[in-house]
Amino acid sequence: MARWEPDAAGRLREAALQLYVDQGYDQTTVAEIAERAGVTARTFFRHFADKREVLFAGSGALEQAMVDAVRAAPASASALDAVGAALDAAGEVIGRDHAFSRRRAAVITANAELHERELIKMARLADAMTGALVQRGVAPAEARIAAETGTTVFRVGFERWVSGPGRHGLAATLRESMAQLRGLVAG
Amino acid sequence: MARWEPDAAGRLREAALQLYVDQGYDQTTVAEIAERAGVTARTFFRHFADKREVLFAGSGALEQAMVDAVRAAPASASALDAVGAALDAAGEVIGRDHAFSRRRAAVITANAELHERELIKMARLADAMTGALVQRGVAPAEARIAAETGTTVFRVGFERWVSGPGRHGLAATLRESMAQLRGLVAG
Repeated sequence: MARWEPDAAGRLREAALQLYVDQGYDQTTVAEIAERAGVTARTFFRHFADKREVLFAGSGALEQAMVDAVRAAPASASALDAVGAALDAAGEVIGRDHAFSRRRAAVITANAELHERELIKMARLADAMTGALVQRGVAPAEARIAAETGTTVFRVGFERWVSGPGRHGLAATLRESMAQLRGLVAG
Repeated sequence: MARWEPDAAGRLREAALQLYVDQGYDQTTVAEIAERAGVTARTFFRHFADKREVLFAGSGALEQAMVDAVRAAPASASALDAVGAALDAAGEVIGRDHAFSRRRAAVITANAELHERELIKMARLADAMTGALVQRGVAPAEARIAAETGTTVFRVGFERWVSGPGRHGLAATLRESMAQLRGLVAG
């Protein structure tokens, strides 16, 4: 990033979200985003491949943090406990900015293409966690169920956090959803 | 359906799948499907809105059967038991033709647009089951977790059934996946 553009990525992200919320995602151009952020379109493209990427730039880091957490869980941890550690990590990575997450979710829900992209992201996350569990020695079929269920708990807990006032942290909400699942299964 | 076209829908479905598998979904036209099925394109459009619809025509019936099963579960059934009844119903509705399901899954996995459509279908299924559970008096947050988890078990079990030899029925495989989830949660 050039010296005279401190946190251009952050300003672009904020400008994009505002425009997506105010006038709609489809109606917003990269030129408008750059203008509102006070940078050139060229600077936009130095940070993001396209206007969709502004909303999904963090996906890789999120997946990496969750996979790392599965790998780092104690050898004695069950498959579901390892997945729980991944949810804790997710809470750390994306739970810091409730206002951003809330607006991002609203934009994504309102747009079929973005919604589909989000679903694909979730499917990839489950695949990555399945792989990490298998590397821990969990049988593939069990790993798949554990990872997919963990992803489901993540999605449901995240939606709950985003649609609430955000007083409780994301990690706490995810733990609550996981406890709810355990309660449902217990009877 | 006209008298001189017995089971035109079935023949169109079979012809479409063969072409999608042999030459690719994107490369296949409605005209080719109709020709292979021995009907006109006009007949095709009497049965399906477009070539994608051939693969998703059963979605509405599947969702309805699953929602009906949730509604019909005994009042004493837990949320997860009601979802289990929905999985049994799904096994009945789409478990009859393993060869069709297997080829359909291969076509869908190979095509990003179809894969996205399938993910959206699953999200809708979870929404519908959540609604049916809430109508049974299950608290919304619990209903959501139960329905989403049930949909996850359905997806994972279905994938397992489709990628196996199909000797066991789909319903049995879904029950196995549900039992696996219960085992994971139990410890």
